[in-house]
Amino acid sequence: MTRRHDAPRKRGHRTPLYDPDIPTPTHAERARTLVGAGGRGTLCTAHSEHEGHPYGSLVTFGVLDGRPVFLISALAEHTRNVRQEPRASLVVAEEGDGDALAMGRVTLVGIMEEIPEGDALQAARAAYLEANPGASYYIDFRDFSLWQLDVSSVRYIGGYGRMSWVEGPQWSSADPDPIRSVADRIIQHMNDDHEEALTLCTKAFSLAQEFEAVVMTQVDRYGFEVSVRTAEGPRPVRIAFPEEIGTAGEARVQLVALTKTARSQLAESSST
Amino acid sequence: MTRRHDAPRKRGHRTPLYDPDIPTPTHAERARTLVGAGGRGTLCTAHSEHEGHPYGSLVTFGVLDGRPVFLISALAEHTRNVRQEPRASLVVAEEGDGDALAMGRVTLVGIMEEIPEGDALQAARAAYLEANPGASYYIDFRDFSLWQLDVSSVRYIGGYGRMSWVEGPQWSSADPDPIRSVADRIIQHMNDDHEEALTLCTKAFSLAQEFEAVVMTQVDRYGFEVSVRTAEGPRPVRIAFPEEIGTAGEARVQLVALTKTARSQLAESSST
Repeated sequence: MTRRHDAPRKRGHRTPLYDPDIPTPTHAERARTLVGAGGRGTLCTAHSEHEGHPYGSLVTFGVLDGRPVFLISALAEHTRNVRQEPRASLVVAEEGDGDALAMGRVTLVGIMEEIPEGDALQAARAAYLEANPGASYYIDFRDFSLWQLDVSSVRYIGGYGRMSWVEGPQWSSADPDPIRSVADRIIQHMNDDHEEALTLCTKAFSLAQEFEAVVMTQVDRYGFEVSVRTAEGPRPVRIAFPEEIGTAGEARVQLVALTKTARSQLAESSST
Repeated sequence: MTRRHDAPRKRGHRTPLYDPDIPTPTHAERARTLVGAGGRGTLCTAHSEHEGHPYGSLVTFGVLDGRPVFLISALAEHTRNVRQEPRASLVVAEEGDGDALAMGRVTLVGIMEEIPEGDALQAARAAYLEANPGASYYIDFRDFSLWQLDVSSVRYIGGYGRMSWVEGPQWSSADPDPIRSVADRIIQHMNDDHEEALTLCTKAFSLAQEFEAVVMTQVDRYGFEVSVRTAEGPRPVRIAFPEEIGTAGEARVQLVALTKTARSQLAESSST
């Protein structure tokens, strides 16, 4: 599949309010994070009875070492399709209200393989059930079988004009963000109770000095992002953690430390 | 595309608590209702640069006379794909938490066509914008064009074991349910304030006589469904409206009339 990196489109010509080279998740990491440990997606196959007419169907999946794992019924269209033509892709999209095209989505392109008996099957079974515990009552039915998508390349689209192709090896070696599952709680807590800390960090660690409000919008292993309301409208700011984090507790430690540093840095610069 | 009707799987052998022949939306109608006036879906195409590898991408769409209408960028993978191979399909799935495989989804199979200048283009433009008003600021950009999927057949899956193929003409002539947009409000109102009415209707118009609780689960142009908690667990009951309805007001009139009939019918039978 194509390997080109699309040139990012510029959103206007304003100078960013933060150093664009501070650590940020790669597209491979963002894609792995979005796909996570599994969920629902759309499997695209070539229809077996209609000369390969592109055909899509809803599937649920788990993830094992970056490979989506499916439990599919012999009766389903997609199963007949991939038995005849194993080339396929899986689309996973962020869900939620709002502008669908502003949200992230990933297309995993590869080859479907039925998983043979053995250790691999046990591991795939566990990965599928971890993401789809409700399937435990039919996973052993005779007409169901476990398949995986061997991913050769990945199309990642993070929103308008933020997209690229990720190669299979990069995809496989990237890790999902370890704090993804607690990110929303951290964001809500910071916005509810710690606007002052966000203000101090923003003033100390970015070029944003004049703004009316600041709201945390994102947090990941490498840092966090806020949106500040300036006279020219909302502007994004990214602030790096001094060290990569792996847990909500580590996020707390880093946020407290950053705020302390920010406070003394600002006090110093105002006293000179 | 295949026209077979899949045999429904039996869910146990219990006698239904209501007449299975009372008016119920057809699969064509359910599919049209699910797709509605548009939204987001996954477009499956054959990749132009990789020998037609099945490729999926997120799209937004409107609907005009049953045909999905897309606004797509010349730069997007799917646009290059359909210029070379117009066969495609669009998957639209019910969103929400819970078991994805228990929820409805539709695959529209057909041919992608760029819409030529003229009245058709104006109508398609309006249909797209109705479903995606946020696109108004870029719909006239030169690298965007309007396309439609000419639907030849439709795969409808309403949940576990409830599925069939719908032919293009049936799809095109079916109407989405007119009360879909108000159904959730009607259901909530009935469950919050009118459990007695639901109980009376269920006892008068179905075989369910002994139950602890009744909850409305669905309402459509032809009737409504409740779930009753019986000694053997929850059971579904469907009750028909005497006349097909088209508005929330008509639903109210029918529900009040049904309750009145139920009350007098039950009073009569208890006095004899």
